[in-house]
Amino acid sequence: MTVLALTGGVGGAKLALGLARVLAPDQLVFVVNTGDDFEHFGLHISPDVDTLTYTLAEVANPATGWGRADESWHVMETLQRLGGETWFRLGDRDLALHLRRRSLFDQGMGLTAATAALANGLGIRHRILPMSDDPVRTQVQTPQGALAFQHYFVRDRCEPTALAFEFAGAESAKLNPAIPFDALQAVVICPSNPYVSVDPILAVPGMRAALQSAGCPIVAVSPIVGGAAIKGPTAKMMRELGVHATTLEVAKHYLSLATHFVVDEVDARSRDAVAALGLETTIAQTVMRTLDDRITLARAVLAFVL
Amino acid sequence: MTVLALTGGVGGAKLALGLARVLAPDQLVFVVNTGDDFEHFGLHISPDVDTLTYTLAEVANPATGWGRADESWHVMETLQRLGGETWFRLGDRDLALHLRRRSLFDQGMGLTAATAALANGLGIRHRILPMSDDPVRTQVQTPQGALAFQHYFVRDRCEPTALAFEFAGAESAKLNPAIPFDALQAVVICPSNPYVSVDPILAVPGMRAALQSAGCPIVAVSPIVGGAAIKGPTAKMMRELGVHATTLEVAKHYLSLATHFVVDEVDARSRDAVAALGLETTIAQTVMRTLDDRITLARAVLAFVL
Repeated sequence: MTVLALTGGVGGAKLALGLARVLAPDQLVFVVNTGDDFEHFGLHISPDVDTLTYTLAEVANPATGWGRADESWHVMETLQRLGGETWFRLGDRDLALHLRRRSLFDQGMGLTAATAALANGLGIRHRILPMSDDPVRTQVQTPQGALAFQHYFVRDRCEPTALAFEFAGAESAKLNPAIPFDALQAVVICPSNPYVSVDPILAVPGMRAALQSAGCPIVAVSPIVGGAAIKGPTAKMMRELGVHATTLEVAKHYLSLATHFVVDEVDARSRDAVAALGLETTIAQTVMRTLDDRITLARAVLAFVL
Repeated sequence: MTVLALTGGVGGAKLALGLARVLAPDQLVFVVNTGDDFEHFGLHISPDVDTLTYTLAEVANPATGWGRADESWHVMETLQRLGGETWFRLGDRDLALHLRRRSLFDQGMGLTAATAALANGLGIRHRILPMSDDPVRTQVQTPQGALAFQHYFVRDRCEPTALAFEFAGAESAKLNPAIPFDALQAVVICPSNPYVSVDPILAVPGMRAALQSAGCPIVAVSPIVGGAAIKGPTAKMMRELGVHATTLEVAKHYLSLATHFVVDEVDARSRDAVAALGLETTIAQTVMRTLDDRITLARAVLAFVL
């Protein structure tokens, strides 16, 4: 029996690490958003896969959540002097991973195989599965036109107003065949951004149906606590999309898929409203500052649904 | 009026720097071997162009002649830990140049335009012209089969026996149209490896004829002094190709093109034999240890032919 955890980058990876500390490698599989992926300098950058990889390998930068701890920036410094593009910060050690991935691609591997090789090289034993090996590219519709996700997210610091998100290529992307839908005990939707981290995963044809057919509990953890995003632009996006930035709205967003929902202690008064939607609810502390917080939340989520 | 200098990497770049100190940017143009170029991690590496660029920018590593001074190796160190290919040593700051070149290629530039942009970014005012923007790839025939040049030269440290050199793609490569053949005062063949640095340049269709049609002196400086290569595997290659590793044999190699030949002081007794081939000769100190040596030799070569 297996728990499947759907996750994006920094926010979701916190709970992912907690889950990996609680469940053995044969009990837990991660399905990761690749809608943020892009080509930069001819290299394939997979920000969410990379963040999860670094997090599980415990080499992630604790200050940012992305990139590596103990990083140096000599390539970027020189690139800047050469007039190159430096808006996407690639540390020297991080860059090595992208170069290695490029070699693995050149050897004929897809993203799943390359991710496994890189994770293995970093000592990770849990399986990290990109949602698809085919390109799905999140596009942000703004009043000024469409932006590639990393241009919106990193280069433009989420400043443009987000009118809608589209997942270019999703309609023809093949669901990662390595995802073990057959023996699922539970699905955990990590506290990632619902619109740009989890929705791209769910946009892969067959994903929703396969998750629902599993017939197991599907539990979501809200990335919105007390009306604000724990991390990143989720609350700003929700306001721009015309919905209140509340845990109740996150619950509604997942209503067609989730069966269970974790409400943060801060939002305890919203529990009844979430339950009224037809979701099983529990209360937990979902803001994870320490490793203990991650493990404690992982245990609470699993106790809730298993 | 212009002097054209044909050069490969480290050995030739020494004289190239001397020439650049003596002649103004409108008096001197470099035509550089690209037979060593290869794709690595999806990046275009142009070792001879890069070495000349770093040399003229005076950021080259004085210990090796290639790469940058004041370099760090964090990318390579991490790549090694990830099981990646590290036989071709790419320093962190060097790598930035290759990333930048890739962006320039992605913008639609060819190697000539990208080289100019990178040189400009490093403050170089002399023109560095790749022999062609089209791919020419030196292949080394060995008893074990053909090797791509960098595999032979760097990965295998020139250990395989070289039976012959081939320049794949040369027959369809277009001569760099930016080379100013019209107003040449002299052509200098720098003391680069005749077989793998200068011959690829001469293999581009039209190059030999254009140089000869210029009707100006063509002066070669031997990379073999006292029966040994000043730098690199030239002497070993000559032995394997069945010719003596002497300055006389280098002169014979260039006989169909050169009009003038610089004999090192150490090889003064070969001067008559070189002259007997029909070449104008002079004696100079061609081993360049210091910047002054480079400038002195540049002045001597120019005084010889101008």
